[in-house]
Amino acid sequence: MRVAVVGASGYTGLELLRILLRHPQAEVVAVTSEQRAGLAVGEAFPSLRGLLDLRFESAAEAASIAARADVAFTALPHAASAPVVAALRKAGVAVVDLSADFRLRDAAVYARWYGEHKAPELLGSAVYGLPELHREAIRKSDFVAAPGCYPTSLLVPLAPFLRAGLVEPEHVLADSKSGVSGAGRTLQDGYLFAELEGNVHAYKVGGTHRHVAEMEQEASAVANAAVRIAFVPHLLPAVRGMATTLFLRPRKALTTDDALAVLHAAYAGEPFVRVLPAGEAPRIASVRGSNFLDVGAVVDERTGALVLLSTLDNLGKGASGQAVQCMNLMKGLPETAGLLEAPLVP
Amino acid sequence: MRVAVVGASGYTGLELLRILLRHPQAEVVAVTSEQRAGLAVGEAFPSLRGLLDLRFESAAEAASIAARADVAFTALPHAASAPVVAALRKAGVAVVDLSADFRLRDAAVYARWYGEHKAPELLGSAVYGLPELHREAIRKSDFVAAPGCYPTSLLVPLAPFLRAGLVEPEHVLADSKSGVSGAGRTLQDGYLFAELEGNVHAYKVGGTHRHVAEMEQEASAVANAAVRIAFVPHLLPAVRGMATTLFLRPRKALTTDDALAVLHAAYAGEPFVRVLPAGEAPRIASVRGSNFLDVGAVVDERTGALVLLSTLDNLGKGASGQAVQCMNLMKGLPETAGLLEAPLVP
Amino acid sequence: MRVAVVGASGYTGLELLRILLRHPQAEVVAVTSEQRAGLAVGEAFPSLRGLLDLRFESAAEAASIAARADVAFTALPHAASAPVVAALRKAGVAVVDLSADFRLRDAAVYARWYGEHKAPELLGSAVYGLPELHREAIRKSDFVAAPGCYPTSLLVPLAPFLRAGLVEPEHVLADSKSGVSGAGRTLQDGYLFAELEGNVHAYKVGGTHRHVAEMEQEASAVANAAVRIAFVPHLLPAVRGMATTLFLRPRKALTTDDALAVLHAAYAGEPFVRVLPAGEAPRIASVRGSNFLDVGAVVDERTGALVLLSTLDNLGKGASGQAVQCMNLMKGLPETAGLLEAPLVP
Amino acid sequence: MRVAVVGASGYTGLELLRILLRHPQAEVVAVTSEQRAGLAVGEAFPSLRGLLDLRFESAAEAASIAARADVAFTALPHAASAPVVAALRKAGVAVVDLSADFRLRDAAVYARWYGEHKAPELLGSAVYGLPELHREAIRKSDFVAAPGCYPTSLLVPLAPFLRAGLVEPEHVLADSKSGVSGAGRTLQDGYLFAELEGNVHAYKVGGTHRHVAEMEQEASAVANAAVRIAFVPHLLPAVRGMATTLFLRPRKALTTDDALAVLHAAYAGEPFVRVLPAGEAPRIASVRGSNFLDVGAVVDERTGALVLLSTLDNLGKGASGQAVQCMNLMKGLPETAGLLEAPLVP
Repeated sequence: MRVAVVGASGYTGLELLRILLRHPQAEVVAVTSEQRAGLAVGEAFPSLRGLLDLRFESAAEAASIAARADVAFTALPHAASAPVVAALRKAGVAVVDLSADFRLRDAAVYARWYGEHKAPELLGSAVYGLPELHREAIRKSDFVAAPGCYPTSLLVPLAPFLRAGLVEPEHVLADSKSGVSGAGRTLQDGYLFAELEGNVHAYKVGGTHRHVAEMEQEASAVANAAVRIAFVPHLLPAVRGMATTLFLRPRKALTTDDALAVLHAAYAGEPFVRVLPAGEAPRIASVRGSNFLDVGAVVDERTGALVLLSTLDNLGKGASGQAVQCMNLMKGLPETAGLLEAPLVP
Repeated sequence: MRVAVVGASGYTGLELLRILLRHPQAEVVAVTSEQRAGLAVGEAFPSLRGLLDLRFESAAEAASIAARADVAFTALPHAASAPVVAALRKAGVAVVDLSADFRLRDAAVYARWYGEHKAPELLGSAVYGLPELHREAIRKSDFVAAPGCYPTSLLVPLAPFLRAGLVEPEHVLADSKSGVSGAGRTLQDGYLFAELEGNVHAYKVGGTHRHVAEMEQEASAVANAAVRIAFVPHLLPAVRGMATTLFLRPRKALTTDDALAVLHAAYAGEPFVRVLPAGEAPRIASVRGSNFLDVGAVVDERTGALVLLSTLDNLGKGASGQAVQCMNLMKGLPETAGLLEAPLVP
Repeated sequence: MRVAVVGASGYTGLELLRILLRHPQAEVVAVTSEQRAGLAVGEAFPSLRGLLDLRFESAAEAASIAARADVAFTALPHAASAPVVAALRKAGVAVVDLSADFRLRDAAVYARWYGEHKAPELLGSAVYGLPELHREAIRKSDFVAAPGCYPTSLLVPLAPFLRAGLVEPEHVLADSKSGVSGAGRTLQDGYLFAELEGNVHAYKVGGTHRHVAEMEQEASAVANAAVRIAFVPHLLPAVRGMATTLFLRPRKALTTDDALAVLHAAYAGEPFVRVLPAGEAPRIASVRGSNFLDVGAVVDERTGALVLLSTLDNLGKGASGQAVQCMNLMKGLPETAGLLEAPLVP
Repeated sequence: MRVAVVGASGYTGLELLRILLRHPQAEVVAVTSEQRAGLAVGEAFPSLRGLLDLRFESAAEAASIAARADVAFTALPHAASAPVVAALRKAGVAVVDLSADFRLRDAAVYARWYGEHKAPELLGSAVYGLPELHREAIRKSDFVAAPGCYPTSLLVPLAPFLRAGLVEPEHVLADSKSGVSGAGRTLQDGYLFAELEGNVHAYKVGGTHRHVAEMEQEASAVANAAVRIAFVPHLLPAVRGMATTLFLRPRKALTTDDALAVLHAAYAGEPFVRVLPAGEAPRIASVRGSNFLDVGAVVDERTGALVLLSTLDNLGKGASGQAVQCMNLMKGLPETAGLLEAPLVP
């Protein structure tokens, strides 16, 4: 499998390279970065010195990339991604897009959250790349939109309960905590070490985070009903990792064992979803650097609320790992190829 | 004001010393520690070298402490605190107890969460030391039970809404994130740097954290109704600080401005509660090392949920700072004496 | 004492405000920031909300500042500082400059490290603000250049040994480790949390760090001989704090006790230098948030090398704390006023 | 290759499992832990849940382990390791020992640093497992003592200069900084998150760290002269990683280019030693989670001192990675098998 990484100078691009370098069937043949074009990969990323003998090139030559690669990962900011993806698709290469540009199916919804879409004609053709929901569609597709990290962390625990009609769809409350690498390498005050160490704060409270759109799109499809999510993201003094705590209102009383049974039934065969035993809460450390998503469930004895807990690595199952999982499915490779590395602990 | 710190070798004890050393009316006259009895304070705490010329003594001689001190802070583990407090009270010294032993008014409730009480005859005589709820009672008391950090972080934002009947008392959902100093200097695997850096996880999910008892006691008194709280605490890779996010169900629709107005009305005169402007979320860093509690409010546009956000320093307003605030009130000192230090940023 | 902080929006400015707010004789009357002019201090620094009711103004009106203030702290980048200082001096206000612009006495040396000087006529008139070396001169001056953080961390342990001729002046080797706040709020990749957590690296190795110039200037004056320093700074995954390890070659054999006696003799009366007992190494945590500098000494049994160790808070004794200490001396206030706050531990 | 990990419940044991799980020729057949005997690996290490279906057993049955395994890694504390190794060797299994018990060749030297040796008859039979110094001996051996992390970080940069007689062997000065995982999972105050975040301090200053013995043994052998090392280790607020800065006195003047040429000549063919270009300092982040050791060199322009810089992951090239590298050599496998994983950045 010849692979190009378009927009390889950010954190999701770097993580793609880290995974692809150990992938037994993948060979990275091209990496692009407008800012770093001409630079050797090992100069830009000292961690990769000696591991990948390529230079960054410009993404402008989509045809050239398509000629050399069987699949391209696009890891560009939203809006910047759409035209590049359009060019690559036109040139005939399979694409896994890590931006938000093709996750929403409705151009109007996209416009409300992100502004005008740059390639609306492609909106319907991408599959939402969450294998736990859309495995078969991904298998048949050559164009996948890899989900956001927050949506992945919510949808995996939430979906089985919505699908079975066990919880009220209009009262989904979610408190998420994310490591800062989710913001990429953005140069902003708030991402400086001196600002973030020992600091935690919520942001985009009140339904204003853009990921809400794709959460509700996917959750509503699963529930076959309009799902409404009160989503409060928090920034953590951590590099990688995301922990999500969901508060759900059961339609009829559930026990913790009931809830765990629902998760086990849903994810028994999933290679990357680990349902934890009763009494054990998922930990960010236990998934760091991996493609695992750990999930737990508890029914609160005082209020009857169902509490679901998940952790993932926002660069792994929350972005690049999941994107490679999609590539494996699209290309008929073993789904876990390159992805069963043990998490980095300690 | 002559002050003794009983159980001064833990983090809340150390923070008490740090605050009292700058307090213009307080003089620390005795510090106790069973483990470190005989050791100079500067040997045990190199940060205090040159600042406090005392040796740790044993707390066994309550009468001796009472003879020298006007007020004693007891910073001992629950159950260990009760008999020491009883002896100090008997010897006639005013006490601010930082343990959980005198926060609950009902011996049966105490027994359910902590085991048999060691000085049940004193249970009714302590005032719950949250000045924002009980200022006048604290002023008149010589025995105060300083609140837990989690209850403080919940009750301050929550109380005005319960008092006014604006939210449903049976559906209070709270997600709290705490720095590890809240666990004291406990030697447990999970508190090691190698385990905690970059890690976040929930613990005691499902209504099993002991602080739930005092939250519900105080919240129910404010609401004049049985309040039920689904409380999910999380451990942060941070030393100090606590961030709490509350999801409440308004009895009738509220706007963000409505909610902020409620908070402003409740806390206009409070010296340590800072209500943030709309659109600004409280940050742990902004209260680090201080006695401030910052609070914000947002109504979620999708679900109508009222989201309240608070941050405090778990050793400051969450423990030792608040204890000193209580001492100031009890002894007729200016309430803010020793407590208006600017937070440590960055 | 009416105080202006010119260039108050960086970390040293913020730390000045934090210290001055608790200083019993100081009143902050003006704060300037070109970027944030017009903004209330509490909007720019949420930690100071409710503590300081001022708005940032522009520094352009030096005369206006001089009219209102008895002393001005200038916390601007090098080169930017010189003309502002010149204007303030001309307007007659006492100045403590925290930039590098007036630390070097020789314009040619300045030019070699920093480029052409913008106010060379003032070069000779500033006193190097290290009280442990120049207390009497500072007392008599109304213009002080506060030392760099690295030079402070080296010179305090080193000076007594150079002064007594106990070590070879041409073989001073120093390995320093600094928290990232020393770089200010600079928006650079390397200062992002995601780049720095868990990371350490040397930088400006080989005599290229600008602080070498002032270290050698001051050390040579103390030694009355040309001192040459091999200085290797490292960046730490820490916000505040600096640890320096010096390797010195004794002219004749020393014991650890000899070395400690030298330090004790030199610093017996110093309020902020704490000489640690044999066997105890200084810790960054023990000086965090304070104006203390802790120092230790050990003679290496295998090589005979004298190892000196120091820690300080780069924003405290390494910058703003020391600047306030200088102000106290300049203005005849108690030297420790506002500066004896206990370090923030944990 | 059937592999046993004896003492698998500490951090080096966990890292061995992480590496061996991705090793194409290795199969982990047994893991031992006296404390956790009977427990499933995934219960003790949630990160490995689903990846390794084994239970911890006791190491008491060396014969049983030998019957099932071709090679055993022993990751036990010093002194505890020797008798276990002796039993395993007697039972005929190849051993890579990660403790300090077999690194020193001289029983008297061992006794001076560690106490009486428990299996002195084996002392001469182990090869010091630093492939860059002893590759051929490791290839021929079935008993290897894996080096300590500090010695590895010093010896790799230092050896080529000693071997060529370019630096004075009696004036080797080394400042090392280590992540806390080097101390294992030890429950000590100083390793708590609340004590270590933002903290740095030296420890065992003055030639008292036990690793000095093996550094000097190996360096002296390379130099064919008695090497004396002034070694000052520091503890970092980081989990993994080690940065070492060496100050050396060249016998005749060297340039930075000369020094880099020496390193390039020495390590041109080494798969895990990366010599960085002039002007680039090694970073801990760039080797995190990997078996790489990055090295740089600079001649200090002021003193003529040669400054060598290295970074490694103390659990990777500093322990478990290097141990697997040795196993590969001992068993005729490709030296890099399982070890070319890209470092975890960010």
